[in-house]
Amino acid sequence: MNFRSDNVGAVAPEIMAALEAANHGPAASYGDDEHSARLNDSFSRLFETPVTVFPVSTGTVANALSLAAMLDPWGGVFCHELSHIHVAEGNATEGFTAGAKLLALPGDNFRIHAPALQAALQTAGWGIRNRAQPQAVSITQASEFGTLYQLDDIAAIGEAAKSRGLRLHMDGARFANALSALNTTPAEMTWRRGVDILSFGATKNGAMSADAIVVFDKTLVEPLSYRLRRAGQTWSKMRFAAAQLEAYVADNLYIRLAARANALAKRLAAGLSTVPGVTPIAPVEANLLFLQMPPALTDALAAGGVKLGRRDAGVVRLVTRFDGPEADVDGLLALARAA
Amino acid sequence: MNFRSDNVGAVAPEIMAALEAANHGPAASYGDDEHSARLNDSFSRLFETPVTVFPVSTGTVANALSLAAMLDPWGGVFCHELSHIHVAEGNATEGFTAGAKLLALPGDNFRIHAPALQAALQTAGWGIRNRAQPQAVSITQASEFGTLYQLDDIAAIGEAAKSRGLRLHMDGARFANALSALNTTPAEMTWRRGVDILSFGATKNGAMSADAIVVFDKTLVEPLSYRLRRAGQTWSKMRFAAAQLEAYVADNLYIRLAARANALAKRLAAGLSTVPGVTPIAPVEANLLFLQMPPALTDALAAGGVKLGRRDAGVVRLVTRFDGPEADVDGLLALARAA
Amino acid sequence: MNFRSDNVGAVAPEIMAALEAANHGPAASYGDDEHSARLNDSFSRLFETPVTVFPVSTGTVANALSLAAMLDPWGGVFCHELSHIHVAEGNATEGFTAGAKLLALPGDNFRIHAPALQAALQTAGWGIRNRAQPQAVSITQASEFGTLYQLDDIAAIGEAAKSRGLRLHMDGARFANALSALNTTPAEMTWRRGVDILSFGATKNGAMSADAIVVFDKTLVEPLSYRLRRAGQTWSKMRFAAAQLEAYVADNLYIRLAARANALAKRLAAGLSTVPGVTPIAPVEANLLFLQMPPALTDALAAGGVKLGRRDAGVVRLVTRFDGPEADVDGLLALARAA
Amino acid sequence: MNFRSDNVGAVAPEIMAALEAANHGPAASYGDDEHSARLNDSFSRLFETPVTVFPVSTGTVANALSLAAMLDPWGGVFCHELSHIHVAEGNATEGFTAGAKLLALPGDNFRIHAPALQAALQTAGWGIRNRAQPQAVSITQASEFGTLYQLDDIAAIGEAAKSRGLRLHMDGARFANALSALNTTPAEMTWRRGVDILSFGATKNGAMSADAIVVFDKTLVEPLSYRLRRAGQTWSKMRFAAAQLEAYVADNLYIRLAARANALAKRLAAGLSTVPGVTPIAPVEANLLFLQMPPALTDALAAGGVKLGRRDAGVVRLVTRFDGPEADVDGLLALARAA
Repeated sequence: MNFRSDNVGAVAPEIMAALEAANHGPAASYGDDEHSARLNDSFSRLFETPVTVFPVSTGTVANALSLAAMLDPWGGVFCHELSHIHVAEGNATEGFTAGAKLLALPGDNFRIHAPALQAALQTAGWGIRNRAQPQAVSITQASEFGTLYQLDDIAAIGEAAKSRGLRLHMDGARFANALSALNTTPAEMTWRRGVDILSFGATKNGAMSADAIVVFDKTLVEPLSYRLRRAGQTWSKMRFAAAQLEAYVADNLYIRLAARANALAKRLAAGLSTVPGVTPIAPVEANLLFLQMPPALTDALAAGGVKLGRRDAGVVRLVTRFDGPEADVDGLLALARAA
Repeated sequence: MNFRSDNVGAVAPEIMAALEAANHGPAASYGDDEHSARLNDSFSRLFETPVTVFPVSTGTVANALSLAAMLDPWGGVFCHELSHIHVAEGNATEGFTAGAKLLALPGDNFRIHAPALQAALQTAGWGIRNRAQPQAVSITQASEFGTLYQLDDIAAIGEAAKSRGLRLHMDGARFANALSALNTTPAEMTWRRGVDILSFGATKNGAMSADAIVVFDKTLVEPLSYRLRRAGQTWSKMRFAAAQLEAYVADNLYIRLAARANALAKRLAAGLSTVPGVTPIAPVEANLLFLQMPPALTDALAAGGVKLGRRDAGVVRLVTRFDGPEADVDGLLALARAA
Repeated sequence: MNFRSDNVGAVAPEIMAALEAANHGPAASYGDDEHSARLNDSFSRLFETPVTVFPVSTGTVANALSLAAMLDPWGGVFCHELSHIHVAEGNATEGFTAGAKLLALPGDNFRIHAPALQAALQTAGWGIRNRAQPQAVSITQASEFGTLYQLDDIAAIGEAAKSRGLRLHMDGARFANALSALNTTPAEMTWRRGVDILSFGATKNGAMSADAIVVFDKTLVEPLSYRLRRAGQTWSKMRFAAAQLEAYVADNLYIRLAARANALAKRLAAGLSTVPGVTPIAPVEANLLFLQMPPALTDALAAGGVKLGRRDAGVVRLVTRFDGPEADVDGLLALARAA
Repeated sequence: MNFRSDNVGAVAPEIMAALEAANHGPAASYGDDEHSARLNDSFSRLFETPVTVFPVSTGTVANALSLAAMLDPWGGVFCHELSHIHVAEGNATEGFTAGAKLLALPGDNFRIHAPALQAALQTAGWGIRNRAQPQAVSITQASEFGTLYQLDDIAAIGEAAKSRGLRLHMDGARFANALSALNTTPAEMTWRRGVDILSFGATKNGAMSADAIVVFDKTLVEPLSYRLRRAGQTWSKMRFAAAQLEAYVADNLYIRLAARANALAKRLAAGLSTVPGVTPIAPVEANLLFLQMPPALTDALAAGGVKLGRRDAGVVRLVTRFDGPEADVDGLLALARAA
């Protein structure tokens, strides 16, 4: 019963099959192969606009290089004060930008809000040489808390950003979970709401070793391609990363996988809602549950074989995933009810 | 008939099988899984000393982070003036070190030589604050030219480096080809000759998407682990990188694969030695051939379906690989003889 | 009536005289001259312990290079959320450290407090590779708000820092003002309370173009000397910076200058305390006043020729300095009373 | 008899007087003062085109920030293989550019030549992501060897640079010496020949602590202003740097000072030309002499009180300066003749 992270999951069979299928004969390297060429076409159809896709090794580098493409060393990016880029990426953004600053904003449920952003933009010290100059905004969809930005939220943030010339980045480590939950399209959730560049997560939802940067703003493509190469992100056998991503979106596989993870989270949340002492501390909108529970209950779950994440002050994080067995959910619930 | 690079090769069947075998149930993420644990054990046995292995996405980042672990921003690393780290990695080392300098040395056949290194160390400006302070040496084995350092060469470079407190890095993008050609052991070719850290190539020789940094000097391990994370090199599903590398060295697979590539290179070189106008410009010691040939011959080969690398001044690069068909070698030779 | 900043002040006559006296014949460059040699002796006597002094061009670079000497790129430095290094140095620390993070702590009167620091150290994510690793603490004495850390406050912060292996930096842009106000010695306010490195401000208090880094922790000296050179902070004619700093501390000049600035601030605060509608929002402990006042009053002062700093929400900053005329203080008070 | 460097010189009386004259009353900080405003006007007249002048602390930072304003981290700058930026600035350019590469070109007398530059541009690997992309050229006038680029040389280099979109930087640490020797104007030696940005040296020729960046290409001004601030190069009391530079160029003082240094060099060279065993290894065109001489003679000079610079292989460097006494030149010559 592993609910520690969606990173513990397997590779989806369709993706493993795609890797095998891609493994034939010689193929051009560094992205000059047919898989990589098809990838741009495939994602351009998916996003209903011409995009450039760069496969990368991890979400951390997807975020940091996306932001480096948009920020000067004297710039700043607004983000939630508990966002992954700010607290859980080992200063990757500061490093790849040669020193830009993360401008932390508060906000309920790990989300920033357009009014707070607008207020911060009012007092940003524009043109003052010793103040970090705001140049971007970053939001995480679904958030690190498992909560969602509604399409109007994104649009409002996008408008606030654009009103002062800032670009908008979306950390989509759980992009598919959000898309499924909102029952919308990739285009609607991104560039039509002002997103300029997207960290497109796949590894947490069934890929093996490939996430991607999806670039909507064409002016970012060329400089980013150089940044990727010198960051060691240009695989010589790029076709195997491309094949994973191709298969991931083919026939809406990624949505089906995410929908299953989300459904398991709903089932888990519903079950736990009847367990005394268990209080959700955020709405369960994707595949993450954050719960306040008595330490004795947490201990009982752990003793019963449930792997989970312990946070400060009695908060527990549970994550469901595309390949999580329903039996595990039910097993956890049984343990909770027994405790 | 693709002789453009060893990067165009497929994934060895044994490695693909290992990926499939690793794809079961949930597993701990970020290298806390059993595959990753076994990897350190496996490589420690292989190298006959305790080592730490960090899988990475590409050889570029293996090199740049290895060097960053050894260099201060005001430091310098001696390397061949045509080495990959100096001319073909997009300033990755300068970037990840926050500004260290590559101190280029000349040397025949893409190799640096201990006397030249010693001479450079004599005039290095030790302690002069405006001079890059030498802190490391980097050699490529097999070299970018397909040539080899003999074990004594490495030892001599290692001694020169150690005599002034420098560390020694080996860029082993074609480590297996060198090992097979020299018919020696990993230990003999590395730490027993003074190597402190190794970029261990696998992708060019049958892996899918994983190279590695192998650390002999224990003091480098912890700082390097932080550098890897913030470089986006810590895969959440690390087990799939570990599984590739495990399979790569199991039962000496990597040597068998490299031996075949090397043998094809020998066959190709022998055949071309009888073609008028074709002159090797370096000894063929691994799986690379650099040849001077008439442009008309190069054109004829290309017209006949041979993919090859054209360099300046009529030089052609041909690369053989573990999965290259003998028929391709013979086909190329037939074209050459006909032309 | 210029109360906008202490940076608007002149050069103290004693310091100008020292510059003239230093201007004779040839002298060794880059700090090998007699003035620079005497500087280390002079400051070592002043601080009652052997120190190394590096003159620098500005307080910004003093802070950023002091922190760079103590922080890895994956490290973090605790500081007040409104500290100069965090909000008013153009990301200099992020830049010179190659990406370290400023870990902002709240605290009244622009000061951090040992209990908050200890709490943050408890939950710092030690050893977790994706969390910034705390390696230093920075405090500003006197603070950017004109408030002071008492000696016990510094000691408590120093102890908290040392308990987890962190080093302590003091931003002493207004070091002399603090020293004078606390009526203590340089040694008592720094290394005897745990300070490892000090940004020693002089320009705001009578120097022309020289601040300094004073290093107590000897292990930081050599690496810092390289950082300074590559940052362009090693003047060829170093003797003129050294001469300024020598004169600045000779015969306690710096204390006398700061005492006068502080006295003017007290006089100004006392006078304004009787003006209706004017409310100090921080204790006036050095040479800075932060006041809430009616916009009409601020406008009246400005119209009357008072140069001052306007902050958000009706807050006004007034700064006194060593060479500020008493008549200007009285003139401001007269305008305020008339308004 | 100090011939070690022009850095050992004093401050010219006119400049010291200007510092005293600038030391009155309060003045706006960070370059908002009247001296700084006049500086831009003064230099714009001097250069016969609108320029922006940024005073900086040293030539190293002038060079590194000028280049950082023109180079991406994946870019490269062509320079002489023995240029100061490449071998004597502690990797400052690599640091401030976040990793750009110095692309070393050979060339007699420490000068690069347009044909070599053109050849390098032919084989630069344009658009290849793993090759440093050329974005700038840097020349030193007068060179570190005391030699000169003729105006046509500069024009040819500028044209070669512009033909591929590169910008041209001039390291003018000894700008005045070159200008005097060529008997030309600042405009003719810079932007009229293709120079986009200039490191304008003053400290070696009579200033106290101020060099400058002179920007001809307007698009570089704003980003550079942020880089300067975060590099700690924006003095709060900027007026004292501006005052030095104003006085330095007023009434052609800088030319008069440099002319005297150059004349002393000519006198020294003429005298040494008659000393057996002394061979100049470069033409003496500015204020530097590089001479081959017998070690015994070098020792005799040193024993006689001459301070000089010893280089490898019996080469000696002698530097004359604006305030060097003729008697020192004659004293050195007497010692040489006696030896």
